[in-house]
Amino acid sequence: MDPMVLMDNLWIMVAFILVIFMQGGFIMLEAGSTRMKNAGHIAGKTIFTLGIASLVFWAVGYGFIYGDSAGGVIGLSNFFYGDYAFEGGGLSSSIDFIFQLAFAAIALTVAFGGFAERAKLSVYVIFAVLFSAFVYPIVAHWVWGAGWIGALGKQDFAGSTVVHLTGAMGAFAATILLKPRIGKYNKDGSPNELAGHNQVFTALGVLLLWVGWFGFNAGSTFGVADAFFGFVALNTQLAAAAGAVAALLIGWATLGKADVPTMLNGALAGLVAITASCAFVEPWAAVLIGIIGGVLVFYSMKFFEKKGIDDPIFALSVHGAAGVWGTLSTGFFATPELAEMNGGQAGLFYGGGLTQLGVQFISVLACGVFAFAASYILLLITKGLTGGLRVSEEEEIMGLDMSEHGSYGYPENVNPQTNTGNFHTGA
Amino acid sequence: MDPMVLMDNLWIMVAFILVIFMQGGFIMLEAGSTRMKNAGHIAGKTIFTLGIASLVFWAVGYGFIYGDSAGGVIGLSNFFYGDYAFEGGGLSSSIDFIFQLAFAAIALTVAFGGFAERAKLSVYVIFAVLFSAFVYPIVAHWVWGAGWIGALGKQDFAGSTVVHLTGAMGAFAATILLKPRIGKYNKDGSPNELAGHNQVFTALGVLLLWVGWFGFNAGSTFGVADAFFGFVALNTQLAAAAGAVAALLIGWATLGKADVPTMLNGALAGLVAITASCAFVEPWAAVLIGIIGGVLVFYSMKFFEKKGIDDPIFALSVHGAAGVWGTLSTGFFATPELAEMNGGQAGLFYGGGLTQLGVQFISVLACGVFAFAASYILLLITKGLTGGLRVSEEEEIMGLDMSEHGSYGYPENVNPQTNTGNFHTGA
Amino acid sequence: MDPMVLMDNLWIMVAFILVIFMQGGFIMLEAGSTRMKNAGHIAGKTIFTLGIASLVFWAVGYGFIYGDSAGGVIGLSNFFYGDYAFEGGGLSSSIDFIFQLAFAAIALTVAFGGFAERAKLSVYVIFAVLFSAFVYPIVAHWVWGAGWIGALGKQDFAGSTVVHLTGAMGAFAATILLKPRIGKYNKDGSPNELAGHNQVFTALGVLLLWVGWFGFNAGSTFGVADAFFGFVALNTQLAAAAGAVAALLIGWATLGKADVPTMLNGALAGLVAITASCAFVEPWAAVLIGIIGGVLVFYSMKFFEKKGIDDPIFALSVHGAAGVWGTLSTGFFATPELAEMNGGQAGLFYGGGLTQLGVQFISVLACGVFAFAASYILLLITKGLTGGLRVSEEEEIMGLDMSEHGSYGYPENVNPQTNTGNFHTGA
Repeated sequence: MDPMVLMDNLWIMVAFILVIFMQGGFIMLEAGSTRMKNAGHIAGKTIFTLGIASLVFWAVGYGFIYGDSAGGVIGLSNFFYGDYAFEGGGLSSSIDFIFQLAFAAIALTVAFGGFAERAKLSVYVIFAVLFSAFVYPIVAHWVWGAGWIGALGKQDFAGSTVVHLTGAMGAFAATILLKPRIGKYNKDGSPNELAGHNQVFTALGVLLLWVGWFGFNAGSTFGVADAFFGFVALNTQLAAAAGAVAALLIGWATLGKADVPTMLNGALAGLVAITASCAFVEPWAAVLIGIIGGVLVFYSMKFFEKKGIDDPIFALSVHGAAGVWGTLSTGFFATPELAEMNGGQAGLFYGGGLTQLGVQFISVLACGVFAFAASYILLLITKGLTGGLRVSEEEEIMGLDMSEHGSYGYPENVNPQTNTGNFHTGA
Repeated sequence: MDPMVLMDNLWIMVAFILVIFMQGGFIMLEAGSTRMKNAGHIAGKTIFTLGIASLVFWAVGYGFIYGDSAGGVIGLSNFFYGDYAFEGGGLSSSIDFIFQLAFAAIALTVAFGGFAERAKLSVYVIFAVLFSAFVYPIVAHWVWGAGWIGALGKQDFAGSTVVHLTGAMGAFAATILLKPRIGKYNKDGSPNELAGHNQVFTALGVLLLWVGWFGFNAGSTFGVADAFFGFVALNTQLAAAAGAVAALLIGWATLGKADVPTMLNGALAGLVAITASCAFVEPWAAVLIGIIGGVLVFYSMKFFEKKGIDDPIFALSVHGAAGVWGTLSTGFFATPELAEMNGGQAGLFYGGGLTQLGVQFISVLACGVFAFAASYILLLITKGLTGGLRVSEEEEIMGLDMSEHGSYGYPENVNPQTNTGNFHTGA
Repeated sequence: MDPMVLMDNLWIMVAFILVIFMQGGFIMLEAGSTRMKNAGHIAGKTIFTLGIASLVFWAVGYGFIYGDSAGGVIGLSNFFYGDYAFEGGGLSSSIDFIFQLAFAAIALTVAFGGFAERAKLSVYVIFAVLFSAFVYPIVAHWVWGAGWIGALGKQDFAGSTVVHLTGAMGAFAATILLKPRIGKYNKDGSPNELAGHNQVFTALGVLLLWVGWFGFNAGSTFGVADAFFGFVALNTQLAAAAGAVAALLIGWATLGKADVPTMLNGALAGLVAITASCAFVEPWAAVLIGIIGGVLVFYSMKFFEKKGIDDPIFALSVHGAAGVWGTLSTGFFATPELAEMNGGQAGLFYGGGLTQLGVQFISVLACGVFAFAASYILLLITKGLTGGLRVSEEEEIMGLDMSEHGSYGYPENVNPQTNTGNFHTGA
């Protein structure tokens, strides 16, 4: 078999492993960003929702994305994937399958950020099935399958829109339907901080995500041609770095204290933003895209909090706002040479006019609206099936570790008899 | 040098790194599953036992497995490995050596699950040497070296038997000789739960193991031919996913609450089970093998607990019961095509009759009995050398962090003066 | 394009990812080794200093190292790196750039070990810029660029000197200028232990570093020729193992208790020591180098503590003393064959006389003195800019999480109203 073909497969195998590894980043990011009484639940649900996403992708998701397209809307073949022959051209179907599976699971995990600290366990199980079957695959079919947005020439190299914005819109629908956590807002509508319980976890989570992102972005080369993965990784590194530093400085300048969670979200925003544009822009533009991502996430967090939207893991800001910015950024910064190599047109600042920016804008709008509306409807269905999306007030105060799983995640740090009502309301 | 040969070496290098990475998973899994007063000890011993396993493997282990076979029982050459010439065929001897070393270290770490929260530090040091020298290498020689079980045509692609069952039998011998932890059983024999102190650690541990397992299983291709590693990874992913979801649902249905540790063990059971069969079965069978693994681990945990066997990290259930099931599973599900490619015969459900199932059964029995008996005898020798396997009652109540290492793992979370007797008895 | 060239690039891409991953190891190592009140700060600063190191390396660092050399002292071209063409010979410039970037960031992170628990946030920001621009690049130019030490034939395969000693000298300058933490020394000069708050974090950190080190050392092959990376990884594994076991045993024999942090530092010392020599020595020598590293770190920690140097993360001992030992070790143990393959001369014990040992000694001295002096001067400049390197006494007692970032890293584990003065002085 051709060594080049095997090398393509080897690189995507490594990239797949890195994207699964990102789930470890989410475990720590989400557990660290929430309160102690929900920590076991938050960490544990990431494992079983990875399980559900995998099984649903196997059963129907892959077919909906890559099956024979029904009019550019959805694929309708290749269900219950079972292939293993590899004749030796391109990626083996197994490698292609697992790499796509890993992306689908990330979109779901992003969405669950908006459910944190108040949704029932049964809601996680049912929505995981529905989102993995009907939301992510349709957007992915539109953009990456044989769908209509891909046909427009959209630039979304690794999925700022397909994965991050889609996930963020699921989170958005959930935050609206679930309503804010107890204690998040005062009677006058002013917000309180319900601080995450462990910043070390959050920082480790960000670093693990940063590492895994090299599989996410540089693996989206789908092979080793021209060692182009190295250039993608370079842009990814610079944007993440710029996002972290920018968020640190804007937080410091604005608030007088550089708070750690904002800075960490800056790094993530840089990563999300460069996800669409990593193959289309020069390194200086990657730095700029990261800086804007880092500043944007800071103001976005404030904006949504002020608007009464309680988004505990900041999915809307990190994956939503930065995802939109990242998708639009190629409309400004894509170079002619890189656009020719990787699809679409040059951006506005390279003489490409508004063409590509228009495509990017339309695609963000279409994908965002669809993902939001579909998630909203599926959550209403879920609500019907579960008799309400949210745990009771008493359960929420007690914490989901106990209410949904029957034991605390940190049994030695709590005394349920004496401390629950007080200690566990957090902050 | 042939690019294909170098690519084989490169993939196994990556796989080696992933298997060493699994030790990070065990650190978090084991620390999270035990009590706070033992956490520094549990985490730290994983590092030095990795050290001992590596040095013993270098000195004698590799030679016992892969040296010239003395009648199919044990190898007797290649001690104090020092080769570095590579003429360019197959795997370089260095790569082969370190990949095998990493597996040997995993078997030891599994075994130490059964020692948790009561064995002396000196017992860890001495048993690490003895198990790494005399238990794992002999089983590995039988199956993977030039030994008698390999000659039967046993299917154990990555070591459900060789690594996981062998480790679990070491844990089994230890649980019997060490006896249950203080407080585990009431006078009437009914069990108490001595809950692990940090479910976030446990969940992260499971995810890290899941990631590392792609090196363990897909690296057992020993190369990149046909990009077959991708198919192995696909089966691994599906079985882990199915195990997690199955354990969640069976726990929920049976107990009314879906407890987090059971679900996490379900993912691990899926991984252990598919370890033998990942190269022999179709994806639908991988899903089924994972589901059965997830259900089995749930009932196995209950069974051993009821039988008075105190196995703190559930090594017997996760690595033992699921290891046996995984080894047998190829006797049912191995397809003719995959069996032809990877050794042995087709399974019962593919017209292969009982031949392969019989080989699988005999090999499990032989390896299991040997590993148990050898571990038991070596533990009796260890007991003689250390004057008892177990710390004193006072030390166990105080915790092994303090008794064996002289300081608490979390010095700011405890107050030894006032809280030890109360707080640290845990749960 | 030649498959061998692409394979070289693929391996260094993987190695780059592993070296970035080491930052996760440092997050856990440093957070675990310090007190709870500083944990969010310590973990968070690792992310933004990785950001600063990346941006500075992009702007000027790479050019100072690899630009056209001004008399062997410093490079002066290739600033604001923006290349992405790859004609297909050797490593692509993007891959080379990011791999070097990752090393530069490690040196900075090592240096910050000496700042822990008392330096102002502004000091981190400013010194990160200065060190990344003017300290690491100059040493790296001398040894790895077109500089004068490389021309002597120095053996430093992956950077015991360039990365670890340079970082340690930055830490040394900081410990002297910052002075010991409050409570570290009694009035009579005798030291107290200010125990790190989480040994599980520390142990996980060491394991993550151990894993990442395979990218650091084996990636310094810069390609896959002869699958030599496997031999480098073998030596790395054995030295780390030997360091851990040696430190465990020396601690146990000397103090009566085998403390966990010392043993963990032994593993790191083995890794640091073998970093220079991993490509030059036989496996038995790697074991010996690791053992000596493990013993050395134990006595070094005691020595610096007794001398009144408060080095919270033990950067001086782990990266400094072991870095010096590792650099010198090739002067003793380099084999003629491996020296011929990888540069320099055979060591003293292989008939090479004192030539190579002399080169190693001179290079350690030159790099060490320069890195110390430059760091010291840059810290004085930083002090001038920030109005003092250290937070106030009140802030230090309160903890840097609160003083520098405005919130605790573990808000649910502290009660600022009642506990600060007491609980948070630690140990």
